[in-house]
Amino acid sequence: MTTAAVFGTGSWGTAFASVLADSGTDVTMWGRRSEVVDAINAGCNEEYLPELRLSERISATADPAEAASGADIVVLAVPSQTLRANLGDWGSTLPTDAAVVSLMKGVELGTTQRMSEVIADAGGVEPARIVVVSGPNLAREIAVKQPAASVVAASDERMAQRVADACAAAYFRPYTHTDVVGTEIAGATKNVIALAVGMAEGLGMGDNSKSSIITRGLAETTRLGTALGGDAVTFAGLAGVGDLIATCMSPLSRNHSFGVRLGQGMTVAEVVAVTNQTAEGVKSCTSILDLARQHGVDVPIIEQVNAMITEGKSTPEVVEALLSRPRKAETG
Amino acid sequence: MTTAAVFGTGSWGTAFASVLADSGTDVTMWGRRSEVVDAINAGCNEEYLPELRLSERISATADPAEAASGADIVVLAVPSQTLRANLGDWGSTLPTDAAVVSLMKGVELGTTQRMSEVIADAGGVEPARIVVVSGPNLAREIAVKQPAASVVAASDERMAQRVADACAAAYFRPYTHTDVVGTEIAGATKNVIALAVGMAEGLGMGDNSKSSIITRGLAETTRLGTALGGDAVTFAGLAGVGDLIATCMSPLSRNHSFGVRLGQGMTVAEVVAVTNQTAEGVKSCTSILDLARQHGVDVPIIEQVNAMITEGKSTPEVVEALLSRPRKAETG
Repeated sequence: MTTAAVFGTGSWGTAFASVLADSGTDVTMWGRRSEVVDAINAGCNEEYLPELRLSERISATADPAEAASGADIVVLAVPSQTLRANLGDWGSTLPTDAAVVSLMKGVELGTTQRMSEVIADAGGVEPARIVVVSGPNLAREIAVKQPAASVVAASDERMAQRVADACAAAYFRPYTHTDVVGTEIAGATKNVIALAVGMAEGLGMGDNSKSSIITRGLAETTRLGTALGGDAVTFAGLAGVGDLIATCMSPLSRNHSFGVRLGQGMTVAEVVAVTNQTAEGVKSCTSILDLARQHGVDVPIIEQVNAMITEGKSTPEVVEALLSRPRKAETG
Repeated sequence: MTTAAVFGTGSWGTAFASVLADSGTDVTMWGRRSEVVDAINAGCNEEYLPELRLSERISATADPAEAASGADIVVLAVPSQTLRANLGDWGSTLPTDAAVVSLMKGVELGTTQRMSEVIADAGGVEPARIVVVSGPNLAREIAVKQPAASVVAASDERMAQRVADACAAAYFRPYTHTDVVGTEIAGATKNVIALAVGMAEGLGMGDNSKSSIITRGLAETTRLGTALGGDAVTFAGLAGVGDLIATCMSPLSRNHSFGVRLGQGMTVAEVVAVTNQTAEGVKSCTSILDLARQHGVDVPIIEQVNAMITEGKSTPEVVEALLSRPRKAETG
């Protein structure tokens, strides 16, 4: 019997806990807030995923050591910019032989580290034990058991296989992969591209324009990922173009919806005030841009989104810049 | 002053004529039916693109020789399976020094020829003069001058440039390219993939499932295109993934909408009866599958769609087959 610990009680952490449980894995979730822990133990994470009745295989605790104890798989699903502090709090409780899975999609501000790098650095986890799960996985669709597929990437194929075996539910198909860097970069940048696509939609642009921005977004994401050592093939797969499409087109995507409101004329502060949350792409566009500059990679969409978020450039100017680059050969 | 002839008065032919006119090119359209010709001369192609008030640079005639006379650019936009017969009727009237542009997206039944091959074969046009225009270009969005970009591909870069110069409007950005084969295969296969995505949507599947099918569709389209001599990079660009996303996600796409109705339980004949037209993917799935088999390329989505269209396989069975292939390494 495989057992898993899931650290974090947001919508994706909860949905993935449910996938694990439906695959026959016993799950203990860790959450900081007792009311969320109690709700999960009562069978429903009302605040983050109210539509999902949780399996009896899932329990929750506010004690990290209790959650981690004996886990074959530890799943990390906390907000990406809090990962280092969280690992400082409870990283020492993680079993030293567990596969450590990142569900997080971001690049750390300041250090420009990918999540797996933060796990290794702040959690003291050997890179061979780190596994990244990423794909077109809108949590609310997985909560209602819609069919979905995902990439399970690790440098050590056996660790990827352990996690794939533990999360292969009837409605969730994991594909093992070895490109950790490409999978993480694809997952982080798609949030920023989705903001840009949302802005275009909010300004009234149609599917021709949105598809063009997604296509260019895929190109710049691939450029960045390969410059960092990722494999171009990853970006043509589920964790690349697959996740990018789902995030850029779905009304269920927070980054997409955040961008739509920006396109409709709201400021970042206004959207945060209305939705009571900040989209991941808003937080990580600056760190991803830093990473691209360090490696001399041209990322015009990420640059424009960052200029909008951090310098207050207007959304119409941003979208105009994205759609009006000089005419030339496509691959030039 | 560049002049162009557009053969065909459907929605995309009419929208592209409008792009040419808005770029300062005089356009004569040819149509077989006098009522459509008269409507265009009166300023609106009511039957196919009622939302578009046509430029005064556009006129129409039912006389092919009159349309073709003196044209620097001849644009072919007739239904793909009628191209050979049409060229038999009026191919001899085309100027022997004109760039001949294909807007058509299909593979000929029986011969498995791409549209550019039919143009060379049945129209006696040297391949160097043939230009393919393809991208995320939903006609109804272009009609209302929404920003769009497209690939203009030709083996002779000067021919591509001539066409690009003639269609560079404020809202339409052409990118020149040299990969004719890849551009055509991407354009033809995306219609079949859009049928599959529509079927999944009609069965109630969400964006995770649809994105997965698009991702696998891109993979099989790329396999087929590169086996035929196309460049993999084309499939990652506007004519590849860009057009695929627009066609698979937009309610304005006929192929997507046709697939949705199939997914909702209608038969092919019922959808044709209700919509009074057959989607391009329905007509060309068999020829594209033939082409793939001739080259030994595995195209599971196209195979399933063809089994549904020609053998009456049920839509739930088709979608189930697309979403439940055995778990394995993603690139295996």
